[in-house]
Amino acid sequence: MAHGQALLVAESQLALKLKGVPFEYIEEDLSNKSPELLKYNPVHKKIPVLVHNSKSIAESQVILEYINEIWNNNPILPQDPYQRAMARFWAKFIDEKVLATRMKANFAEEKERELVTEEFFQQMKFLENELNGKDFFGGETIGFVDIVAIVVAIWFPLTQEVLGVETFTEEKFPVLFKWIRKITEIDVVNECRPPREKHLAYVKARIEDLKSASK
Amino acid sequence: MAHGQALLVAESQLALKLKGVPFEYIEEDLSNKSPELLKYNPVHKKIPVLVHNSKSIAESQVILEYINEIWNNNPILPQDPYQRAMARFWAKFIDEKVLATRMKANFAEEKERELVTEEFFQQMKFLENELNGKDFFGGETIGFVDIVAIVVAIWFPLTQEVLGVETFTEEKFPVLFKWIRKITEIDVVNECRPPREKHLAYVKARIEDLKSASK
Repeated sequence: MAHGQALLVAESQLALKLKGVPFEYIEEDLSNKSPELLKYNPVHKKIPVLVHNSKSIAESQVILEYINEIWNNNPILPQDPYQRAMARFWAKFIDEKVLATRMKANFAEEKERELVTEEFFQQMKFLENELNGKDFFGGETIGFVDIVAIVVAIWFPLTQEVLGVETFTEEKFPVLFKWIRKITEIDVVNECRPPREKHLAYVKARIEDLKSASK
Repeated sequence: MAHGQALLVAESQLALKLKGVPFEYIEEDLSNKSPELLKYNPVHKKIPVLVHNSKSIAESQVILEYINEIWNNNPILPQDPYQRAMARFWAKFIDEKVLATRMKANFAEEKERELVTEEFFQQMKFLENELNGKDFFGGETIGFVDIVAIVVAIWFPLTQEVLGVETFTEEKFPVLFKWIRKITEIDVVNECRPPREKHLAYVKARIEDLKSASK
């Protein structure tokens, strides 16, 4: 049972749903942060935050580890310490490297765009190698890395649709696209996803913010 | 027992020593990376790397978690899931925020230096609050956060000595300086520390590299 309230983004929600833990989802307006967000995450003032037993936890991967330890049915991390280390390694790689490189590639000045896009391709190739021959990063079922990689499955295609670029394609990354089809067939994944129109509007607004911030 | 070889920096060495695990330490010349480093960490091509049972693990905090799971004497993470989440939170904060802000503050142009230094002070205050009333971040003994924070205890004072700046002072951060005195009294901590002259030379060389790279 999850007690209390939760300010969450897709990753934490998905982990709770995979474990069948009921929770209350509270949407946060990031342009006008609530007193609760500032109270529960005074260091970063960011989502996601999980509030459980009146105590708050911030940082997406820290929350995922906590959820996995508190509710130990349907484990999202492998039992074997080496495999668990590998899952943490790839999750960190996606979160710290791939997202930043993708962002840079999308918004780079023309002269550096080619170089950054090449770096993005290399990083995605590492992910393809890791995924190759498996249904999911977690093996036969989705796990820690799949949850962290949801952004690749859902945000990357939508962002490039809005921007009108085509760097992340099935032709170039067939293994990842096969994974995207598989993961987006899973009901609980789709339950954590905003409706398409709402998501598109959000991505468009964020892109406009980024463009005006860089002017 | 640790099998095989290890390419390590201080954090991983310290965790192994705290658990009494013998290991072979191999120093890596980062200006001329070895074929072993490229083989064992093809993604980041960086140290630290731990090789155990012929399998390699990269990324400092991933290595620390692995060491803690494989050798479960003298645990470096708390048993309680919430306390464990907090340790992961603060370790991530030091690794991702404090180090970057400190670096920026040390090398910022004059016009932004004040702002970045203020940010550095705020981050260090969060650490002081976390540490206040305890001997170590880990409580009565050193743990995960103390290990990750070794850089604050050993590198920060030395870097500012070389740069001739005085932003990290005992007057401003008495709780952290008390902790530095305590942690640098521990034998295994000092065993993981390069001799002062060697460390000074290294810091000087790195600062010169950074200065010429920014020209």
